[in-house]
Amino acid sequence: MSDKSCGPVARAVLQQCLQARLQVKAAQENSDAEWVEVGRGMVIYVCFFKGATEDILPKMVSTLLHLRLCESESGRIVSALELPGSVLVVPQATLGGKAKGRAMQYHNNIGKEDGLRLYTAFVSLCQQEVAAAEVTLKHGTYGNRQVLKLDTNGPHTHLLDF
Amino acid sequence: MSDKSCGPVARAVLQQCLQARLQVKAAQENSDAEWVEVGRGMVIYVCFFKGATEDILPKMVSTLLHLRLCESESGRIVSALELPGSVLVVPQATLGGKAKGRAMQYHNNIGKEDGLRLYTAFVSLCQQEVAAAEVTLKHGTYGNRQVLKLDTNGPHTHLLDF
Repeated sequence: MSDKSCGPVARAVLQQCLQARLQVKAAQENSDAEWVEVGRGMVIYVCFFKGATEDILPKMVSTLLHLRLCESESGRIVSALELPGSVLVVPQATLGGKAKGRAMQYHNNIGKEDGLRLYTAFVSLCQQEVAAAEVTLKHGTYGNRQVLKLDTNGPHTHLLDF
Repeated sequence: MSDKSCGPVARAVLQQCLQARLQVKAAQENSDAEWVEVGRGMVIYVCFFKGATEDILPKMVSTLLHLRLCESESGRIVSALELPGSVLVVPQATLGGKAKGRAMQYHNNIGKEDGLRLYTAFVSLCQQEVAAAEVTLKHGTYGNRQVLKLDTNGPHTHLLDF
């Protein structure tokens, strides 16, 4: 019997930004919140589904970072690497939701441990890929609330399933 | 021969916001840019595909506005109507893109005229639906660049295909 279902194992949503600010540590009694910030570039929201393995990561990273979606200051459409710009990776488990009545269900999402492992490997692979280009890569912390402030010149929201 | 393809005819991406500001008219020689603004609530990015008709709209509007995705100030998860909050509708044709090599293609997107007609009807139906609730509904202008500034407490990005 084949276990091959035809659904995607990972999903990314991309938005272009002029500036984005993401909280990576919430404020606590004795410390302020910590934030990361990027300039012109791209926000990548990412979610892994059941069945996802590390095999999918090289293709995901290569596709996402090389897609020509970013607008340079002169209006040319180039990749984040060519911009060269910034990339902000945001874990976003909600992307796996399916509407059931008035609620969203997340039965297809990968488990937390595997999700963290894949997310960490994804970020690490992105970092390798951008190392040669003048690209700033920042990322959110898995499992946290992704408090985000986004300034765009048009988000040009794209969806990519893998 | 059946013409029934199994793909979606419309796509929405939802993001929660504390505040959002969208340009609805670009600055011109003799006039400043015009913006609309909403407070706590939800941003709905929407895109129609080939084959979409007005039949799909009532279900879309009902689903999107009644889904429990919004966080009230006290942390309860309620719909935008129950919040009662704000809704910002943003036309987002890029949601129909498919990656081909390093470029995105939009072959499956509905034509501009039909897209404008459906978008206008969608906004109008949303307005009817929120009229009874204390909900502010604002929307972008179809075909324009959607210059957007978004302030979130976690966007909780969701995808819904119809």
